[in-house]
Amino acid sequence: MPTFDEIADRLHSPVADVMRTQGPVRRVVAGEIDDDTLLELLELASHASSDSHRRCEFVVVRDPDVKHQLARANRQGWSVYKRVLRTRSQDDAMVESRQWLSDHFEDVPVIVVACVRGRRPLFPAIGASAFYGSVFPALQNLLLAARAAGLGAALTALPLWSHWEARRTLGLPRRVTPVAVVPIGWPRGTPEPARVPPVGNVVHLDRWGHQPYRARGRP
Amino acid sequence: MPTFDEIADRLHSPVADVMRTQGPVRRVVAGEIDDDTLLELLELASHASSDSHRRCEFVVVRDPDVKHQLARANRQGWSVYKRVLRTRSQDDAMVESRQWLSDHFEDVPVIVVACVRGRRPLFPAIGASAFYGSVFPALQNLLLAARAAGLGAALTALPLWSHWEARRTLGLPRRVTPVAVVPIGWPRGTPEPARVPPVGNVVHLDRWGHQPYRARGRP
Repeated sequence: MPTFDEIADRLHSPVADVMRTQGPVRRVVAGEIDDDTLLELLELASHASSDSHRRCEFVVVRDPDVKHQLARANRQGWSVYKRVLRTRSQDDAMVESRQWLSDHFEDVPVIVVACVRGRRPLFPAIGASAFYGSVFPALQNLLLAARAAGLGAALTALPLWSHWEARRTLGLPRRVTPVAVVPIGWPRGTPEPARVPPVGNVVHLDRWGHQPYRARGRP
Repeated sequence: MPTFDEIADRLHSPVADVMRTQGPVRRVVAGEIDDDTLLELLELASHASSDSHRRCEFVVVRDPDVKHQLARANRQGWSVYKRVLRTRSQDDAMVESRQWLSDHFEDVPVIVVACVRGRRPLFPAIGASAFYGSVFPALQNLLLAARAAGLGAALTALPLWSHWEARRTLGLPRRVTPVAVVPIGWPRGTPEPARVPPVGNVVHLDRWGHQPYRARGRP
């Protein structure tokens, strides 16, 4: 495992390189992640964009009993979702890496559960945007920081399929909402490369469907 | 304005520094952002975490008429939200910078509207998490990349308060959902510093409320 100084160095990697090489890493080894490293990653996460009156908070799960309960919920969620996924995607590697995580969830050294104070608003839609927009930017910073540090991480909501169960497991008050989960560990083997379409395919100019940059990659 | 080579250089800034200095920048000058720069930022955004079958897409608004319609919707949304915000926050600088954006929305050189194919699921909650978790990570990458490039940007949903109106303005099919908006431009004056609490205040260990790192900042 790298020292904290080595981690601090790695967190100065070029931002564009970190973004281009960040992708979900679900297969990790059981090796420890020290508190200093973890708090450094979460500190970077806390700088992300958020609503003016909401802030992402993190429950860091290291306790084997709490982890086991999240693992059980994750397996229940996965047993349903894997059937959905198989009908939607031919991507066997992705299904296998999720299966691996489901089978080895207890071995992942740290599980971060992102929560926010307040209940999720169903309406208006911009209220829901503001709510989730106070959590996922922080998690993207966390994923990038983990990638820069040489750690593997991925974003999932499966262990939270029952909010009632997740609240009980994590001792969350009713006014706190769990939103997503990031398992973190040192990568096992080579991470799966993320596949990204040419940027021009996801860019529309002025109106939807007007795609003058189609099939265009990096300048 | 910097050349594209200068922008490419800036995008190699240390990731931790970019995260720690990124914050909402709403006051910008009317100066142009060229296509190469914009596509580079959006390409970096497209590498972010997303659901296995959803991907954030971007409507880049440069056309004055389309921008004017978004500006009008933003002003309508702001006229209501500013009263909410004044009861919640004593942060006058933040209210003023939002007022500035509302007053000068048409002058912002580029408005990016993030959209995703599909309707937002109300239930189950993890379905909503997966939906928004495919959009906001990309927008956080966009905000970080803009910050690294020396551009100012901020996240808002106000111009989308009426999805019906936003769909008409942007020509969005019914199956496409607009989620959030990022106005981008070269910063006017010194950006507002983002205030972030000590990381230990937003970290709980194993169960909510157990905060052994409270008041702890960076290691």
